Parts: sequence; structure tokens; C-alpha cells
Amino acid sequence: DFAKLDLGRTARTGLPEVVWGPGKTPEQIAKIMLALRDRQSAVMATRVDPEVYERIRAIEPSIEYDAFARVCTLAGAPDAPPTPVVRGILAVLTAGTADLAVAEEAAITARLMGVEDVRLIADVGVAGLQRLLSRLDEVREADVVMVVAGMDGALPSVCAGLVDAPVIAVPTSVGYGAAMGGLSPLMATLNSCATGVTVVNIDNGFGATMSAIKMLRAAER
Amino acid sequence: DFAKLDLGRTARTGLPEVVWGPGKTPEQIAKIMLALRDRQSAVMATRVDPEVYERIRAIEPSIEYDAFARVCTLAGAPDAPPTPVVRGILAVLTAGTADLAVAEEAAITARLMGVEDVRLIADVGVAGLQRLLSRLDEVREADVVMVVAGMDGALPSVCAGLVDAPVIAVPTSVGYGAAMGGLSPLMATLNSCATGVTVVNIDNGFGATMSAIKMLRAAER
Amino acid sequence: DFAKLDLGRTARTGLPEVVWGPGKTPEQIAKIMLALRDRQSAVMATRVDPEVYERIRAIEPSIEYDAFARVCTLAGAPDAPPTPVVRGILAVLTAGTADLAVAEEAAITARLMGVEDVRLIADVGVAGLQRLLSRLDEVREADVVMVVAGMDGALPSVCAGLVDAPVIAVPTSVGYGAAMGGLSPLMATLNSCATGVTVVNIDNGFGATMSAIKMLRAAER
Amino acid sequence: DFAKLDLGRTARTGLPEVVWGPGKTPEQIAKIMLALRDRQSAVMATRVDPEVYERIRAIEPSIEYDAFARVCTLAGAPDAPPTPVVRGILAVLTAGTADLAVAEEAAITARLMGVEDVRLIADVGVAGLQRLLSRLDEVREADVVMVVAGMDGALPSVCAGLVDAPVIAVPTSVGYGAAMGGLSPLMATLNSCATGVTVVNIDNGFGATMSAIKMLRAAER
Amino acid sequence: DFAKLDLGRTARTGLPEVVWGPGKTPEQIAKIMLALRDRQSAVMATRVDPEVYERIRAIEPSIEYDAFARVCTLAGAPDAPPTPVVRGILAVLTAGTADLAVAEEAAITARLMGVEDVRLIADVGVAGLQRLLSRLDEVREADVVMVVAGMDGALPSVCAGLVDAPVIAVPTSVGYGAAMGGLSPLMATLNSCATGVTVVNIDNGFGATMSAIKMLRAAER
Amino acid sequence: DFAKLDLGRTARTGLPEVVWGPGKTPEQIAKIMLALRDRQSAVMATRVDPEVYERIRAIEPSIEYDAFARVCTLAGAPDAPPTPVVRGILAVLTAGTADLAVAEEAAITARLMGVEDVRLIADVGVAGLQRLLSRLDEVREADVVMVVAGMDGALPSVCAGLVDAPVIAVPTSVGYGAAMGGLSPLMATLNSCATGVTVVNIDNGFGATMSAIKMLRAAER
Amino acid sequence: DFAKLDLGRTARTGLPEVVWGPGKTPEQIAKIMLALRDRQSAVMATRVDPEVYERIRAIEPSIEYDAFARVCTLAGAPDAPPTPVVRGILAVLTAGTADLAVAEEAAITARLMGVEDVRLIADVGVAGLQRLLSRLDEVREADVVMVVAGMDGALPSVCAGLVDAPVIAVPTSVGYGAAMGGLSPLMATLNSCATGVTVVNIDNGFGATMSAIKMLRAAER
Amino acid sequence: DFAKLDLGRTARTGLPEVVWGPGKTPEQIAKIMLALRDRQSAVMATRVDPEVYERIRAIEPSIEYDAFARVCTLAGAPDAPPTPVVRGILAVLTAGTADLAVAEEAAITARLMGVEDVRLIADVGVAGLQRLLSRLDEVREADVVMVVAGMDGALPSVCAGLVDAPVIAVPTSVGYGAAMGGLSPLMATLNSCATGVTVVNIDNGFGATMSAIKMLRAAER
Repeated sequence: DFAKLDLGRTARTGLPEVVWGPGKTPEQIAKIMLALRDRQSAVMATRVDPEVYERIRAIEPSIEYDAFARVCTLAGAPDAPPTPVVRGILAVLTAGTADLAVAEEAAITARLMGVEDVRLIADVGVAGLQRLLSRLDEVREADVVMVVAGMDGALPSVCAGLVDAPVIAVPTSVGYGAAMGGLSPLMATLNSCATGVTVVNIDNGFGATMSAIKMLRAAER
Repeated sequence: DFAKLDLGRTARTGLPEVVWGPGKTPEQIAKIMLALRDRQSAVMATRVDPEVYERIRAIEPSIEYDAFARVCTLAGAPDAPPTPVVRGILAVLTAGTADLAVAEEAAITARLMGVEDVRLIADVGVAGLQRLLSRLDEVREADVVMVVAGMDGALPSVCAGLVDAPVIAVPTSVGYGAAMGGLSPLMATLNSCATGVTVVNIDNGFGATMSAIKMLRAAER
Repeated sequence: DFAKLDLGRTARTGLPEVVWGPGKTPEQIAKIMLALRDRQSAVMATRVDPEVYERIRAIEPSIEYDAFARVCTLAGAPDAPPTPVVRGILAVLTAGTADLAVAEEAAITARLMGVEDVRLIADVGVAGLQRLLSRLDEVREADVVMVVAGMDGALPSVCAGLVDAPVIAVPTSVGYGAAMGGLSPLMATLNSCATGVTVVNIDNGFGATMSAIKMLRAAER
Repeated sequence: DFAKLDLGRTARTGLPEVVWGPGKTPEQIAKIMLALRDRQSAVMATRVDPEVYERIRAIEPSIEYDAFARVCTLAGAPDAPPTPVVRGILAVLTAGTADLAVAEEAAITARLMGVEDVRLIADVGVAGLQRLLSRLDEVREADVVMVVAGMDGALPSVCAGLVDAPVIAVPTSVGYGAAMGGLSPLMATLNSCATGVTVVNIDNGFGATMSAIKMLRAAER
Repeated sequence: DFAKLDLGRTARTGLPEVVWGPGKTPEQIAKIMLALRDRQSAVMATRVDPEVYERIRAIEPSIEYDAFARVCTLAGAPDAPPTPVVRGILAVLTAGTADLAVAEEAAITARLMGVEDVRLIADVGVAGLQRLLSRLDEVREADVVMVVAGMDGALPSVCAGLVDAPVIAVPTSVGYGAAMGGLSPLMATLNSCATGVTVVNIDNGFGATMSAIKMLRAAER
Repeated sequence: DFAKLDLGRTARTGLPEVVWGPGKTPEQIAKIMLALRDRQSAVMATRVDPEVYERIRAIEPSIEYDAFARVCTLAGAPDAPPTPVVRGILAVLTAGTADLAVAEEAAITARLMGVEDVRLIADVGVAGLQRLLSRLDEVREADVVMVVAGMDGALPSVCAGLVDAPVIAVPTSVGYGAAMGGLSPLMATLNSCATGVTVVNIDNGFGATMSAIKMLRAAER
Repeated sequence: DFAKLDLGRTARTGLPEVVWGPGKTPEQIAKIMLALRDRQSAVMATRVDPEVYERIRAIEPSIEYDAFARVCTLAGAPDAPPTPVVRGILAVLTAGTADLAVAEEAAITARLMGVEDVRLIADVGVAGLQRLLSRLDEVREADVVMVVAGMDGALPSVCAGLVDAPVIAVPTSVGYGAAMGGLSPLMATLNSCATGVTVVNIDNGFGATMSAIKMLRAAER
Repeated sequence: DFAKLDLGRTARTGLPEVVWGPGKTPEQIAKIMLALRDRQSAVMATRVDPEVYERIRAIEPSIEYDAFARVCTLAGAPDAPPTPVVRGILAVLTAGTADLAVAEEAAITARLMGVEDVRLIADVGVAGLQRLLSRLDEVREADVVMVVAGMDGALPSVCAGLVDAPVIAVPTSVGYGAAMGGLSPLMATLNSCATGVTVVNIDNGFGATMSAIKMLRAAER
């Protein structure tokens, strides 16, 4: 009778499945990725450490790796169903260079999930405001804006004051001392003085992308 | 030269301005609301306590009050420009009766902001799962789902596993002890095991609505 | 005169003693386990890291190891008194795969302690509700239900709303950022909106089992 | 099809419903209590402040009040179904006099829920150990032991070392400064050095009773 | 011999003494202010609540009151030594209207302490960046810039990226929920991504002014 | 003129100086210990890790090491002035085996500082009350009682209720999860329901000893 | 058999019993104080609010009140046994005027408990070091030094560096913002860079006195 | 049009750029330092770990390293513009030896930035007050005083009471337990009982220097 309730509906939305790396052995990651290859045109595993990848590569050399974003990817089988296109523009901004790895994970995920236009706009933190203002036109074209920022978490507020699109803030664990592993920018972004900001967990670039996609798809209904 | 940068663009998007009540005198609130009456077809002030409203009413009897949601409203002048319609469906769910005031503030705001279809679905917390499941069809039609939940903050996760739309979690300060004024559901929803959940500040029904509207409007672009 | 007070009564209840691994040398663990072999039909040490076990095995090869649950076991001497049977059904549920190690520790402990029927029901987190609902009959037969869940800690609440048995929540340190090493699910489960949930320390699968056994034994009085 | 899943089963277990007072108006509390009178032989509302009760009494004089435990009670209608008896002994211990209100709420709830033998053993905190030891026989007869303790939260640990029954710790908000509103005994009891202790939220005497009843009923299956 | 060490030197720097209101009776405040009148050309008491002032006024009608900044002032006796002039420009910025009371306390203190040019620039929060940019010339002329900001605490970072002067951040307790009484902007400003920001306690406008004056006086040495 | 103030008086009380290991190189520790050898009859360094000691031993083989307490010791030169005897009895109790290293550091320090009678009474935690009660006579003879306890921090309260001497609680970082690195027993002991308990920092066995010695010496005045 | 264990021994040490006010009705406080009058030469109740005292006085006019320290006192009956003298000197220092109420409670308690020489040395905080240094001789004569200090909690460290006696730090809840209700000075004093400091709970002047007395009495054994 | 706004003005103040080490590869650090060599007379990278420097040296042997302060330096090219002199005296005090590394980073930065007179005054913590008092003349000559202190964070308060110059407190992560990684001295210094103290992030010697320089330069305007 569960079919009637259709509780599993979200599993059939056509979005590729993604493998969450932490707590899995290299063998498990490789095996799941290979199994997914037949079902989707692109396969991805997140939060894979370099030494874990070394062992994955030994098992399956065709699995590729982005060491910076700590993401494994594998092309789907030739006859796997194509990933549906997600229309719209997603802008991913970072406050500082140290936030870049989280943003890259987000951007790679978005592209794999079929987002049409993903724009990574790095290092536009508020300490040098002209950096953001000079790229404002690009940012304003986006349908969803993701802002990856640690330390003071000021960029999401500034950004939300300048654009009409919904802003997803991704606080990061960059910093030390009173940054408290990202709690400081997390709390700051939850208190944003600008409207239109919602927040995800610290360093959660992947989750921010999944929410952004749900927003973009809502627009297509 | 600021005009060129168009930094004030968000002020001209057509959304009505809303008065934030806390820290303002009754005189100030009444004065601002009256001033806004000529510029927009509906005027609203949030977080107004009953005793403050008593004094507002003495100043301007036409200002109405929803004591439960603590919201003041005032009809715009006859020739004020109409609020643009925001197309789409916003579902506002609450876990328990105690979360209702925050949800009402959100729903009132959404209606005033022109959202076409606002559905308040109250008291569907996870302790009695059939309550949510029996109303699942209504929830699934929504383009954006807001979930207002205190205590364990479990409803946003359960809900996000059942719908395709983006979910905005609004943790509330309902509860006592380890609820820590809402920090407990705030942390829980930031760690949602379901994808597609973003979070706003504790009790921030107003802010959640503003983000929901940005999402709905993105869909219209 | 202490005998009169019988303060040591709990030491003579027949439950096997268990060795707590942390802070003990491999030599100490092996020595205590060997000493217990004559007094009880099964001997167990918890929270033993792989490299510690390597050294234990060198000392006493008959000590076995479950690397996943990090538990060492040793069969009792042939003439050791048998462990008394604990009647009833203990269901151990996990929200996600990452919670499994804690659940395994709990299940291994329960079996060693003589629990008649231990059911490990893994990966039934609330993000995919049908997983739990499809196994609800099994869960409802249990006399005590243990729910092992990190991140949002939502499963204990959902589960307690569906069963009559007492629910013991075991929050886990799975997750990152706002999970704060398990404080987030700990606080969430303490605020469960469903009645009948009590909570133990983060990752404390062993302690949850000991409480479950006390509950099962109370039923036999 | 929900009937098949029987998700509402817990609602038909025969336990009386209890009204949670906070956030409800006096009118609402009175109305709900009167409505329940026909369905159950005893009706109860918890966490009702004296000034709220004053207004409830004006509405319905037959509703009685325990000002110390802040509990309202109302006898059921003559033909309301009787509350099923819950067999077994529940001992409710308090560390200090200041913990007594929470314990009273627990004891009143237990009696209303049909618990056969409820023993309130007050003021046996560990600063004067002889107080607990002199009443140990009574405590040891209990099937479930609830320990209500604020400040250092030491009593649950001491008690669990002396009895075989499961111990439910109820930390209280008694104290000041480093007691942090009850977080100090909450954390202490979660770290109990004795096995067999589970914990509920701060001041949650009601919830502890509901869990105790589930434990007692498990024994009857 | 203490004279030799001159440990009391700071007491003789010529800055007027200021009365800290909290914990003092109206009688004490009035008495101390009257006593100081002969020794300094202006006398001030901070953090005085309206009802306290009512009683102060009854004792000494010449004591004046700024209800918004909660500051009492009293002119010095005609022959009291004049306050030495502190040369330079102090700009006091606020992010939102709700931060204004703290800023006013700071500005009143600065003027009483003899600061030559005190500029209060209110409501230039980052949600509407053009507000700050349009007043940038005024801000840049300042020798010390104090930024009073609650909620996300983003303004000090933005401001420090735009000026050469030292920036003193005063986080405020404005806000709710995750603002945690000002801890959120406190942590954010301590993690400012811009250099040149130092921080004082939450709502400590008075202390920020005292530090600003020490900076301005250092410039005169 | 400082001589007159005699600010350095504590340096001339005759107590041996102790070297704090952390942050010092092996060379520095060895050098300081050798320098102290001429001035005092026993020399000690605390918190020295095994690998640091390996390098110290290579420099000066006569420096000995207690690997468990992580303490280095060196006999003073033959003509070094003897350590004055500190009269009285210091009892050092531990709750569990895991607290023993901190207690050993305390006991070694006390002996080196000349305390006449140091009694280490290990593993008398409250989960098995008879362990403490059976050694109560020994404990009651002490002039100062130090209680080293992690997890629930219950032992200091129980102990203070049984003895007349001042009790110094040393919370330890033993435990996991809600033990929060020792904050849980720290808070618990600060809230002790028994009078006569003062507290030192987590794991600070050395500091507790220094305070105990000051108490013992006060008795000799 | 408890007599043999003599667990109640501390109750017979001759120290007067003290009534803890919070959570007791005026009637209860008066009744207990009157009952104690026959058994001890002085009776005391702590933490009694003014409005509670008003009602106590109506019941028993001979009960006196120190509104500042919030302490009630009552002379014992003529034939009540005299309080044993506690020999030695207790110095009670405060950092600021706002800490004085806590210090007064401590001093009144000490005098009632029979401490021979109690010295209250107020307002010697480190911001004006000469205040402490000018009274150093008095402080150094003390056998036990209690330091009552909120805000930065710096005075106990400075003081412990200047005296040989044990120092008991009493952090206070004076201050605002980052003082976090006294957690800031509590943590600071636990980390004192000077040896010989032990700490009690925030505002716990009464408990600090009880520990001080145990230290003074230890000296008499 | 940004030029008109001159938002980049701070980039042209003449202060050398400094490379922030964390999160950068050795190759990146070396490359940026070499690039800066032509533009400024001295180049610096902070927070460089020894193993990172080993690889930097392999790339560019002329880059030097201070292993204690973890700072890399490189002389500018012969024709690089000289660093402008910053007039005035900066005193950098440390409470204990363990704070020295942070202070050294600050002092090295200050010298590289052109500060005329940088005075490092180490190990003058308040546990031995004579150490600070004996060097008070030196400290009082400074135009800005930086105080680097962990643990109780008492030195900034004591120091601010003795000097007229602005005091910048740098809390450090020195210590353990209740030091909570530096939060304890951070909170203590934010609550300084002395006026004139502002605070930077934990261990942020670099940031404190940058603020100090802004203060010194303000004096030159």
C-alpha cells in the first residue's frame, strides 16, 4: 500500500544519485559508483580524501578525482539515461580563497546534476567591496545565488541587499579562534540584516546545491 | 554615480515595505504605516505587542490587529499602486499548536505580499505521522514548502523526504530546557538528513516568507 | 556491616562483566578478559581500536574481534556459569549507514548479555519514510526499541509515535559542522515531540543496551 | 489506506490524554478538559500557572488545581471508560526540596495514568547519604526508578549503582550560575558512571512518567 | 612608596569621571554626581533607567536625562576645571535603527569627554549598501571610526575595507534567536575579514568611546 | 622600591619550583631542571610526553620519568637545601581507573613538595558505593581531600557529605560525547549539593596539589 | 547499622544550620528559623528577597534583615548552645562595588559561623592596582583569602600571586554581554595563571565561606 | 565608475601586502612572495608550518624562516619602493612564555610594516606582579600597547589600569580545559574592568599589529 502513498516519489525525480564518501571504504565507494553507472549518465562521490582516492583508483582507474574539491566522478554507461537539464543560472560566490574548495564541490555537483549555467565567482569578500561590485551584473543575472563565506559571514548579507534572487548562505569552517569551526559565520548569516537569505550547514556545498536545484526546478513547473 | 551601480534596485521591485515593530514607539509605527498607505495597497507591521497596539489604535483606529500573530495591518489608499501578484503555491506547515503564531505571521505576510495561494496546514508534527500523510497531496502541490517546527525539529526532514519543492525550515523557540530557546531545532534542521532544506533564524516566519517569495518570483523570470 | 546494606547487590545479578577498552593497555585488556573467562560464559571488551587488537591477538590468539563494532570477544571456559537468558525482543534501528557501528556494538552487547531476540534494522532514516513503514510490524513486536541516529535526530520521534514500547534514543557523532559532535541530535532527542523517549550519551550503544536489559528484566519480575 | 498501516495505533492504547498547558488560553484548556471528560475517567492539564487557573476556575469550578505541581485535574463523566491499571511500582526520588515540584507533577501524572503503586521519596540527595540508604528497601522494590535531581545531578548515578531497575533521570533547573538552567545536571546524568540510566529533558517530569509507564506496560505483554 | 610607582597616574589625566549607573540607588547616583560637579565641568551617569531617573530628578532637578541613551548629565560648577579638548574626528556609525541607543550613549560620552568633532552616522547597514557609500567621504575624514552593529555584524568588516582609520566594532544585543544576545555579531566582528578592526563587549558604547579617546590622545603626544 | 612592597615574597616560601612541560623543548626542560638541582633537593617537570622524555634522557640520563603520570624527576644536588616538610594528611581519591593519571601527577607533586602523608585511594566511584564506604576511615583522617573525577562528577559531592575536611574537586577530561572534554564534571562539581567543595581546572592535578599545600600550611601558622 | 557507618557525622560538627531561602515560602522560612532557635545561638536564612522578608516580618517581627546581602537573622534562644569559635583570619576582597552584595553574604555567614576575624576589603579591583597594594599587609595576615570578582575575574590571579594563603575565587554575575551571567569570570579564575586558587559557583558567597571554614578548622586539628 | 568611488583606496596606502599562509600550497606561497618582491621592500608570509617551509625553501632558498613565529620573510628587490616609516612606539607584552610565539609574529609584522620602535616585553604575567611593575617605564612610553595573554586573560586589565595608551588585547589559545581554546581569555578581556581595552581574535597577533599601525598612523594625520 506504500505505492498508493507514493512515499518514494522523490527517488524517481530523475536527479542522479550522489555517493556520500565519509564512513565508506574505498571498495564500497568504487562498487556503488560502478553500480550507478548503468542507471545515470554521470556518477559522483563527495568528500573523498586523497588517500582514499588512491585506493579507489587502484580498483577502478576510470574513476577520476578533483583533489581540490575532493570529488570523484565517473562517466555513466553509454546507454544510461541522460541527466535532465535544470534550466536557469546558479551563481556561486566565495568570500575568500579559503572558501573555494566548498564552492568547487557545489559547482561540480550542480554541473553533474544538469544545471545549465553555473557561474563560480571567487574571492569577492567584503574587505574589498569593489571586487563584488565589479561583477555585479553577472551575479544579478542568476536565478539563485549561493554565497560561500567563512569568518565574519558578511558577504551573504551584502549580496542579498544587491540582488533579487534567493540567496543560499554556506558558512565555512575557514578561520580559527572565535570562528569556532564555522559557528560564527553560521550564526551571522542566520541573523542577516538583509531579507532573502536562507542557510545550510557549515561547509555544506553539496546540500546548498541540492536546495538550489529544487528552487530552479520549482521555477519550471 | 550610485545610480549607475543601481545599488538601490531591490527597493524598486514592487514588494510592499513592511514595518519591523520591535524598538519602535507606537507613535513611530503608526506614523510610518500611515505614510506607507499612499505608496502601497496594503501596509503591515510585525512583532507588535498587544499593549503597543492599544496605543497605536488610539492614534489611528483604522489600523487593525491580529493579536495571535502580533501583526498590524492597514489598507492602502484607494489610489495606491496594487501589490503585484506572486504566482505559485506556498504551503506553511506547523509541527505543533505552539508553532502556530510564527506560521500565522508568515502566512499573513505572504498574503499581503501578493502570494496567490497560501496554505496553512497546522499541527502535522511527526509524533502522529498520519496527520502529515493524510494531507500530503495538498503539500505536494506547493511550489515552496515552509515548515515551522520547534522542539526536536524533525518535521522539516520528514517533509523534505516527501516533496520535490524546496523546504524552508523555521525553527521556533517553543519548548524548554534542552530546547535552549530554539537552538535545538535550529541545529537539528541544519543537519537535516534529507536534501533540499534551508534554514532561517529562530521564529523568523517573516524572513522565511521573504525568501519564499524570492523563490517564487525566480520561477517567473 | 556493608553486607547488611547489601550495597554490592548489583554485582551479583548474573549479568556478565564487560571490559571498557579506552585507557587500558592491550596487556591489561587481555589479562582481564582471560580472568573473566572462568567466571562467565562469554567475555567482551568494547571500544578497542584495530591497532590495540593487533597487540591483544599477539598475546592471546583466541580473542576475536569485530573491527566494525570495535568489540573483542572471548568464549568462556567450559565450566563457566551460563549467562541467564533475558526474555523479550530488542529492536535496534539506525537512521543511516554511518550510525551502524554504534548499533552493532549495542547488538553484540545485547546478544552477549543473553537477550533472546535482538533485531538490527538498519538505514531506516526519515528522509525516506517508506523504509521505516515497510518494517513497522517487526519494530512493533519489540518490547524495547533502541533508535541510533545522528544529524537531525528525527528518527526517535517518528518511531516513538508509531510504537507502544519504550524508545531509547542513542544520538551519534555522525555528521559535521552544526552537528557539533553529536550535540545536535542529543538536544533534538531530549526535546522529542513524541512521548516515551529517553536518551543516553552520544555514541553510547553499550549503555543503551544495559538500560534496555534492565527494562526487559523488570518485565520478568 | 492509513488504516492498514495503523499509524494512529498509539492513540488507541487506552492511556488518558493529557492537556499541555503552555501556550493555551484558559478558555482553551477548560474547553479541552470538558471535552475529554466524556472519554476518560480522569482529565489532567500540566504546567498551568496560578493566574491561568484562576481564570479556568471561573469558567468551570469543578476543575481542581495543585498549585505546587501546577496541575489541573477534573473527574471524568460517570460513564467514561475507566483508566486501565498499570501494574508495578514506580519510585520517584528527589535530591532536594527544590526538585519536589517536578516530582509531584510526575507522581500526579502516574497516578492519573493508572499506575498501581507510586512512591514519592523526597529529599534523599547525596550530600547526606544516610537519607537514601535508610530508604533503600523501598526503592529496591520498584520496577522503575525515576530520579529528579538538579545542581550536580549526582543522585541518579548513586541510585543506579544500588538498584536493578531501570533508572530515568530527570535533571531540573534548580540552582544558579554554573547550573545553567539545568544543563549541568543534564550533562552529568548523560555521563553517569553507573549503567542503566536514561535521561529526559530538564524539568520533564511528565515525559519521564510517560516513559516509565511504557516500561511498566512492556512488562505486562 | 606608591607615589614613586605612580600607579594612580591614570586618575590624573584630566578626563572627567563617569558614573556607572547599574547597581547604584538613585540617591547614590545623585550624590556622586553632585560631588563631581565641583571637580569637573560636566558630569555624566550611564545606563540609568527611566524610573531611576524619576527618583533622581526628585532629589536634584538640575540633573538632566536623555531617555533614549539612558544617560544623566549635570553641568559642572562655574569654577570647575574645564574638560581638556580631545582633538580629532570620531565617526560613530550604526547598522540599524535598533543600534542607535548604544551609539547615542557613545556619542554623548565622547562629547562630554571633550572630543572635538563627533559624527553620528545612523542606519547605514549593509543591506542597502548605497547608504554607506553615499556618506563615505564623511566617514573617511574620521581619525577613529566606531561601528555599532548587531545581528550579522557585517558593517564593521565592510567599513574597515573602505577606510584607513582604526575601526572599533561595538556588537549589540539587537535581534533574537541565533543572535544570542549579541554573541553572534561579537563573534562575527572578531573574525572580520578586513584588517584594522578591534572589538569591545556587547552594547559597550561607553567603553568603545573611552578606547577611541585613548587612540585620539595617542595622536597628540 | 619593590623590595619594600615585597611583591616577590611568594618566591621565597621554600616550596620547590616545578617546570611546566608544555611548549618547552626537551633541551629547555633538561637545562632548567639541571639549573634547579643546585637550589632545591628535588626537581620536577610536569606534562612531559614520552617522546619528549626520550630526548630529555638522551641529554641527561639521570632525569627519571613516570610515564603514567607524565612527570620527570631529578634528585637535587647533595648540598641543595632540603624541602621543608608540609605537615598533615592529603587524601587523593579517584572515581575511576581512567582518572588515575591525573591523581598520580597530583600525588607525585605533593610528595616532592614535602607533604608528609599522601594517600592515593583509587577507583572509589559512586557506581559501587561500598568501595568508598569501606575506605571511609582512611579518608576521614585526611586534613585535605582531593577528589579526581570525570564523567558525572558525582564523587566530590558524595565525599564532601561524608568528611569534615575541605574537598578540592579535580574534574577530568575522561569520557566522550556529553562529557564535553571535562566541562560536564566541571559544571557538576561547581554545583555540588554538599558544602565544602572548591574546584580547579579540568585535569589540573598539579594545581589542586598546590592549593592543598597552601591549605595545609595555613594550618601550621 | 547506619550509626556504625556514622554517615551523619557532618551533621554533628557544631556548625549552625543555615536556611536556604529560594523555593521556600515565607511561612516555611519563619517556621524553620524559629525551630532552629532552640538548637543554636544564631539562625540565618540566605537569598531572601525583600518582598519575602516583608511577609516573614509580619509572621515573626524578631527576625532581622540585611536588605543588601538579602540575609535574615534571628538570635538563638538564651539557653541554646553557643557557636564554637573558628580561629583564624578570613579576608574577603571584592573587585568592584557591584560584587559587594555577594561578599556581604559571605562575611555575614562567616561571622554567624563563629569565624574570629572576618575582614571585608572592598573595591580593590585591578584597574587601580594601588588600591590592592595599599591594603596588602591586611590581606597577607589572613589564613584564607576569598576574592569576589565578576567581569574579567582578574583579581584572584593578582591576589594569589601576592599572598601565601589559599585563595577561594567567587566569580559573580556582575556585568553584561560577554560576561555571560558570570561564566566569563568563572572560566577566567579556573585558568588562573597563579597557583593556589580554587573556585566556587557564580555568586556563591555562602559556599565559599563554608569551604573557608573547613580550611580554617583543618588548621585546628 | 568605481574609480570615482575610490573603493580600492586602502590598497594604495603604502603598507606592504602580507601573505596569509594557511590553505595555500608551498608553491603558491613562494610564487606570491616572489611576485611581491618587486613591489615592496620586504615580503612576509604568516602561519607557515615547518614542513611547509621545507618545501618553500626547496623552491626558493632566499626565503628565510622564523620557526618560532612561523613567519617567512624575503627581502624586496633592490629597486622596490621602501616601506614608509610608521612613527611611534609599539609595546608588545606577553603574560607567559607560552604566549611568546603569537607576540613574535606580531613584532615581526610590525617591524616589516615599518614601525619605528617595537618593544617586546615578555613574561610579565600578573602571577608575579613585580615583573610588570619593574618595566612600567618602558611600557608607559609606548603609543600603543598590545597585550598577548592566554589562560585568565588578566594582564590586559592590569596593564590598562597603569598606562594612558590604548591597549589591544590578544587572547591566546594557551592552556587547557576551561581555557576552551582561548575563549576564556577572550571573554575575560572583553569584560575588562579597566577602560581603554579593545580585543582581537584568539592568537591574532598579525591582526592586532595591523590595528596598532592604523592607530599609530592616525596619530600622524
